[in-house]
Amino acid sequence: MSVSKNQIKLITGLTHKKFRDESGLFAAEGTKLVYDLNEAFECTLLVVTDKWLLENKPFGNMKVETVTSDEFKKVSNLKNPQGVLAVFKKPDIKLDTNSLSSKLSLALDEVQDPGNLGTIIRIADWFGIKDVICSENCADAFNPKTVQASMGALARVKVHYVNLGIFLNEIPAEIPVYGTFMDGKDVYDQTLTENGIIVMGNEGNGISPEIEKLVTSRLLIPNFPKGEVTSESLNVSVATAIVCAEFRRRSK
Amino acid sequence: MSVSKNQIKLITGLTHKKFRDESGLFAAEGTKLVYDLNEAFECTLLVVTDKWLLENKPFGNMKVETVTSDEFKKVSNLKNPQGVLAVFKKPDIKLDTNSLSSKLSLALDEVQDPGNLGTIIRIADWFGIKDVICSENCADAFNPKTVQASMGALARVKVHYVNLGIFLNEIPAEIPVYGTFMDGKDVYDQTLTENGIIVMGNEGNGISPEIEKLVTSRLLIPNFPKGEVTSESLNVSVATAIVCAEFRRRSK
Repeated sequence: MSVSKNQIKLITGLTHKKFRDESGLFAAEGTKLVYDLNEAFECTLLVVTDKWLLENKPFGNMKVETVTSDEFKKVSNLKNPQGVLAVFKKPDIKLDTNSLSSKLSLALDEVQDPGNLGTIIRIADWFGIKDVICSENCADAFNPKTVQASMGALARVKVHYVNLGIFLNEIPAEIPVYGTFMDGKDVYDQTLTENGIIVMGNEGNGISPEIEKLVTSRLLIPNFPKGEVTSESLNVSVATAIVCAEFRRRSK
Repeated sequence: MSVSKNQIKLITGLTHKKFRDESGLFAAEGTKLVYDLNEAFECTLLVVTDKWLLENKPFGNMKVETVTSDEFKKVSNLKNPQGVLAVFKKPDIKLDTNSLSSKLSLALDEVQDPGNLGTIIRIADWFGIKDVICSENCADAFNPKTVQASMGALARVKVHYVNLGIFLNEIPAEIPVYGTFMDGKDVYDQTLTENGIIVMGNEGNGISPEIEKLVTSRLLIPNFPKGEVTSESLNVSVATAIVCAEFRRRSK
C-alpha cells in the first residue's frame, strides 16, 4: 500500500490555513501527539511507515496507509519525521460567553507566532484554562507548528477566533479583564480573582491601544532586582505562564 | 561596496558550532539585537543594506559593508531579513564557583533546542540571574537561533559549559540544588533560598538520573486543578520561568 497523489496533495495542502478552512481538516505528526488528538478529534487518514507499524498500533478501524520512510518524507512537515501522520477533522467550536463569568480564560491579541500560540495552549491546559479566545489576526490553532507545540493540549482546550474588541465590549461587566503592561502594577501585590479574562498581547507590540482600553486591571511581571537594566520584556508564552501560575497559586 | 566571497563564507560558516569555536566569532541579526550585543561584545564586521543605512546609524568606527537587499539575503539566516548583520567576538567566560554561594543561578541538563536555550537566557536576564551553567550536550549559546531568541540578554548573562555531574559534585555543600520533577514537592509549599542552583532538564526526558542524585530539593510545578488530566508537562523554558518567578517573588 502507499499514499496516492491525491492524499499527498491533501496532506501538504493542510499546511495552508485556507485549505484547512475549506476542507475542515488538519494534520498532526508524532506517535504521542496523534494518539492524544485521536481522543478528541475524528481521524480521517493515518499514514505510517512500515517501521512505525512494527512498534506501534494504529487506532480504531481505520484504513491505514503504510509507506516507506522515503515516501513518508514527502508528507512529513518535520525535520526528523517520526513515521506517523494523521489527518483529523477540525472541531466545531462554540464560545459560550455566559460560561466565562465563572472561570478563568485567556484572550490573545494578535499573537502571531504559531509556536508561541501552541505553547500558550499547552500552558492553558496545564492550568485548567478551557478557553483561549484569539483575535482574528492571531496565528491559526491548526497551523502544523501550533499543533506540534501544543503537545496534545488542543484535545482539551478550545481555541476561539473573535473580533476581540467587540467581544470584550460585550462580555458581562462583572468579568474582570487583566492585561500585562510595562507600566502595570506588580502582579504579586494585586487582587487576582478566580474568574476573569487574561489578555496577552502581540510579540513585538504588546496589547493594542483598542484592547488596552477594555482592560480593567493592569498588571506587571516585576523583573529582579527592581530597577536594574535587564531584558525589556519576556517572550509572550513565558509571560503567559508566569501570570497563569500566579492566578492558580492564589486559588490553591 | 559589497561583501566579498570570503566574508560570505565567514558569515555562513558561523551557523556551524565547529566554525564558531575555531574562529571565536558569532553572528547576530536585527537592529535592536545588534545594538544591544555591541554593548558587550567586540564587533568585527557589520553588513547592512543601503536601505538600513538610510534609517539607522552604524556603531563605532568600524568599516561597514553596504549591500543590496538581494545580496543581504545571501548572508541572512532569517526568513524576513532585517538588513543588518554583525559578527562579534565570542566572550572569554570564566566560571567563578565561589561566587555561586551567594546568588541564584541556573543549570541546564541537556537542553537541546537552541530556541529554548535563548528563551531561558532571556528569562535569566529578566530575573537577575547572571550565570547559566550548561551541560556539555546542551545547545550552543552562540547558535544563531539561540542568539536571536535571547533578545540581547547574552550581553548580560554568562553561559558556561561544564561537565554538570562533576560541577554539581564539587560545589560547596551549602549551595542548595533545586530541580523540578513530576513527583517533586509543590514549589509553593517549599522553602526557597535566595541562593542556589536551579537545574532544568532535557525537553523530552527531564533531568538525567546522574544529575537527579545531586539535586537536594525536588520541586513540582502544580497543575490546576490538582489531579485533573492535563498536559503531562510544560515546555522547559516555560517551567524555568515559573520557577524563577517564584524564587524572585519570595525575595521581594
